[in-house]
Amino acid sequence: MTITRADAVRLDAADPLAGLRDRFDIPEGVVYLDGNSLGAPPRAVAGALAAFADDWRRDLIGAWGSAGWGGLAARLGTRVARLVGAAEDEVIVTDTTSGNLFKLLVAACRMRPGRSRVLIEAANFPSDLYVAQGVCELLGLELGYLDEGAPLDETVAVVVHSHVDFRTGEIADMAGLTARAHDVGALMLWDLCHSAGAIPVDLTGAGADLAVGCTYKYLNGGPGSPAYAYVAGRLQDRVRQPITGWGGHARRFAMAREFEPAPGTARLQVSQAPVIGMVALDAALDAFEGVTVEALRDKAASLGELFVALAAERLPALRLVSPRDPAARGSQVSFAHPAAERILAEAAERGVVGDFRPPETMRFGFAPLYVRHVDVYEAVERIAAVVPA
Amino acid sequence: MTITRADAVRLDAADPLAGLRDRFDIPEGVVYLDGNSLGAPPRAVAGALAAFADDWRRDLIGAWGSAGWGGLAARLGTRVARLVGAAEDEVIVTDTTSGNLFKLLVAACRMRPGRSRVLIEAANFPSDLYVAQGVCELLGLELGYLDEGAPLDETVAVVVHSHVDFRTGEIADMAGLTARAHDVGALMLWDLCHSAGAIPVDLTGAGADLAVGCTYKYLNGGPGSPAYAYVAGRLQDRVRQPITGWGGHARRFAMAREFEPAPGTARLQVSQAPVIGMVALDAALDAFEGVTVEALRDKAASLGELFVALAAERLPALRLVSPRDPAARGSQVSFAHPAAERILAEAAERGVVGDFRPPETMRFGFAPLYVRHVDVYEAVERIAAVVPA
Repeated sequence: MTITRADAVRLDAADPLAGLRDRFDIPEGVVYLDGNSLGAPPRAVAGALAAFADDWRRDLIGAWGSAGWGGLAARLGTRVARLVGAAEDEVIVTDTTSGNLFKLLVAACRMRPGRSRVLIEAANFPSDLYVAQGVCELLGLELGYLDEGAPLDETVAVVVHSHVDFRTGEIADMAGLTARAHDVGALMLWDLCHSAGAIPVDLTGAGADLAVGCTYKYLNGGPGSPAYAYVAGRLQDRVRQPITGWGGHARRFAMAREFEPAPGTARLQVSQAPVIGMVALDAALDAFEGVTVEALRDKAASLGELFVALAAERLPALRLVSPRDPAARGSQVSFAHPAAERILAEAAERGVVGDFRPPETMRFGFAPLYVRHVDVYEAVERIAAVVPA
Repeated sequence: MTITRADAVRLDAADPLAGLRDRFDIPEGVVYLDGNSLGAPPRAVAGALAAFADDWRRDLIGAWGSAGWGGLAARLGTRVARLVGAAEDEVIVTDTTSGNLFKLLVAACRMRPGRSRVLIEAANFPSDLYVAQGVCELLGLELGYLDEGAPLDETVAVVVHSHVDFRTGEIADMAGLTARAHDVGALMLWDLCHSAGAIPVDLTGAGADLAVGCTYKYLNGGPGSPAYAYVAGRLQDRVRQPITGWGGHARRFAMAREFEPAPGTARLQVSQAPVIGMVALDAALDAFEGVTVEALRDKAASLGELFVALAAERLPALRLVSPRDPAARGSQVSFAHPAAERILAEAAERGVVGDFRPPETMRFGFAPLYVRHVDVYEAVERIAAVVPA
């Protein structure tokens, strides 16, 4: 029952999302399995950047209105909301993931005065750890690590967790953990960086309070593209984030003397919207038009399953560190090998792009909008040629 | 001694910077006097954005290295440093002005533990007020207003001040106020938004400690372009800013568990650099190549003087609110009139773009790289046609 290239070709032929790859511009011969780190370029972006330059040239400062620059943060928020199971007005695109995490974490602690602890997993993405460490130092709170036995009890103000683990791709039980946090009166803050755009995210269904995410991975916004933040509607008027710039003011151009938070998620903004990055993201999100998150998940699972099955046949020296069950895994498969870094470097020379996470993890992402089953087949073929015997 | 259009033409003919206007793309017939709000588009930007799209397409995630994306924050910092009188390693381009102000203000207060007050001017740009209010609330400090008699004494941790007043264009005494702050052991934090790129700024000569600024005004980086932050070399290792994301980590990709600040200004970064905005800014700064800040100041003063003289002749109903002495004024002239908002709207219909600041200020900016003396002449002609008799 050896898997052949013909099997991969057949899977592509039956793939309802196969045509979406044309929305992207990927160099011939490259197998790009690093869309979980930086998404591939949607074709629409270059044109959108040229149109941006035209708008600026033609209308100068007037383009804040005429070209819709002023409304981008909220409008992009509604586009992202659909992908994360949120209401249209519960998401805003602004700043960076870590910056938004800082703002929401401080806001969460303020909504739970008197509680002395923040919980996170030591296995979380390091930037989340660093931000949580910084917030705890700033506010005089204690940081506990859930995966090291720190208790989730009524001293906890907020729990921070990634929906999909950046190393293993494991999907967390969003509804279950949120319920556990709520049981002790804590707030729940999700990091969606490694899930949104690849698998279904249901913030509303899970009863989540707060969330952050980036747009440069599965959302393909480009390097350092603007991030987003989610606040459940029921909490929006109570969120007081600490970076109170004019971007989050209720009447920015009134130039009033005192800060007054804007209604809803608009108060999470700090300054002017980074228009060029937002214009690129707006075009990038067009690649999701007409696609359901369920279809994305099915395609991602199919790609991942093929990769795991092929690896079992041809890459026996690699140890799977992702969950074996595709339903428990995001759109990513990770393997461990002592020579992981060198294997990835040599694979890259052969046009297979994955990435390395210390000490010995190889990550391969299967962005369902543009990765094909034949890409997966090619990747395993080329990696097999460089794994030490 | 009426000033004529011929006089303006003569001034342009003698202007050593006249050729620089070709580096910009400004619509025919438009007199753009709002570069102090959003700079005009440098011609090089559109091409740089197209090149960015090519880099992303060709090298995907590899472009962080091959296209130099990873070095943009520091490299742009060195380019801005020249314009603000700083050493090359004292400036970094990152985040937004208000976000950087937040970070540096918290860091400054941490460097002055035990001091209970922050000073600012009530006349400062509102976003600076809001951020200072937010920081004081966060840290339990008191905010005092210098221009309302708050004493500058040894209870003050840090003084925040704009180099050029956004309403009146008045230049502050950077060296003098910095010395006064230092006399009582306080730190001095300058906002350069309305000065950098139009007049000389000498952070080193003034002994300044910290500074922030935007790049979308006189630096022409485009709407919401990335901001910069300055930390004097002697303080860099002591700055501890509170938003400790992986962008400011000493070894970002080591994925270590604990935050460890990067050396120098790199620690002011929070997350990934907003590459698209930075690429645009990099191209925009090319417009300053071969230009000294002294030449910019001279041109700006010449434009402002012409405007003031013409206004005295033809716009007697307008009250000058900027300093009369060009040496005391940034590259901006402001007038007050009860009907300011309507006058500006009607002038805009005639192609003259200035801007309104409540309650009755009209601001006109003279970006020395692209505004001509004939533009100034045209502006006064067209404004005279709409000022109520």
